[in-house]
Amino acid sequence: MRIGQGVEWGLHCCLTLAWAGGSEPLPTARLAARFDLPAAYLNKCLQALAQAGILTSTAGSRGGFRLARPPADITLWDVVAAIEGEAPAFRCTEIRQRAGADADECRQPCSVAQAMHIAETAWREALSRQTLADVMAASPPHAPARARRWFELNRR
Amino acid sequence: MRIGQGVEWGLHCCLTLAWAGGSEPLPTARLAARFDLPAAYLNKCLQALAQAGILTSTAGSRGGFRLARPPADITLWDVVAAIEGEAPAFRCTEIRQRAGADADECRQPCSVAQAMHIAETAWREALSRQTLADVMAASPPHAPARARRWFELNRR
Repeated sequence: MRIGQGVEWGLHCCLTLAWAGGSEPLPTARLAARFDLPAAYLNKCLQALAQAGILTSTAGSRGGFRLARPPADITLWDVVAAIEGEAPAFRCTEIRQRAGADADECRQPCSVAQAMHIAETAWREALSRQTLADVMAASPPHAPARARRWFELNRR
Repeated sequence: MRIGQGVEWGLHCCLTLAWAGGSEPLPTARLAARFDLPAAYLNKCLQALAQAGILTSTAGSRGGFRLARPPADITLWDVVAAIEGEAPAFRCTEIRQRAGADADECRQPCSVAQAMHIAETAWREALSRQTLADVMAASPPHAPARARRWFELNRR
């Protein structure tokens, strides 16, 4: 099982927007430069976050991304779901039906799928309980100032 | 995020071995026929389960796979780890270092990685709390007899 790198990038960009994206939106190019990431692929992640209502996107030469709501209202699950999608990680292909399970039985979810689903719910709930504000609070105390300074020194 | 189909196959095969694999080991070909699965890829999954000590593998014309220990001693995490590997689903590539985090800071795990790790631990723990015996108990009452009958009727 693997979570795509876009989740790591998206979360770090959200932190950066919370710390450094005060009055002006930050464009993809500057976020990509900050983390030395490929701008085109990073932009896809940021667009996905905007589509999910986590970021707002402004067009134009002074445009870019901003957090759409306070960090305490953005959970890790919001970000993961926006970038990776909400489909379950375990996909039941109903192989029990090939082994003779009848229509009556198949009205109940498969016991294997149910057990995997319980674990996945625990994962989603643990992501939903943690917000961007929690991650900010657990970050080094000088991280916000460092992010702000970098964007001041590296103006567009 | 996606869990490979091998996990679904592996879990259903473990159930089948618990129900129908009494005195004689069941070979890959018959398990593949039972679930209409590609034998070569299924065999890779079964070999992975054998390497992890969940199944025992016997060579020869009457050979095949058997559960290596009682279903109550096989957790879902054992099966998932054997087939998918134990590497974390969220892989921290330390992008904070590209954004100026210093060596001192990097002695602590990244706050993003830590938060993702908490959720993944919840998932692994939920898988570890559930055993094959639990999944058997949650399966339809006639599933064991149906599995045994199929293997009796479809002798090698």
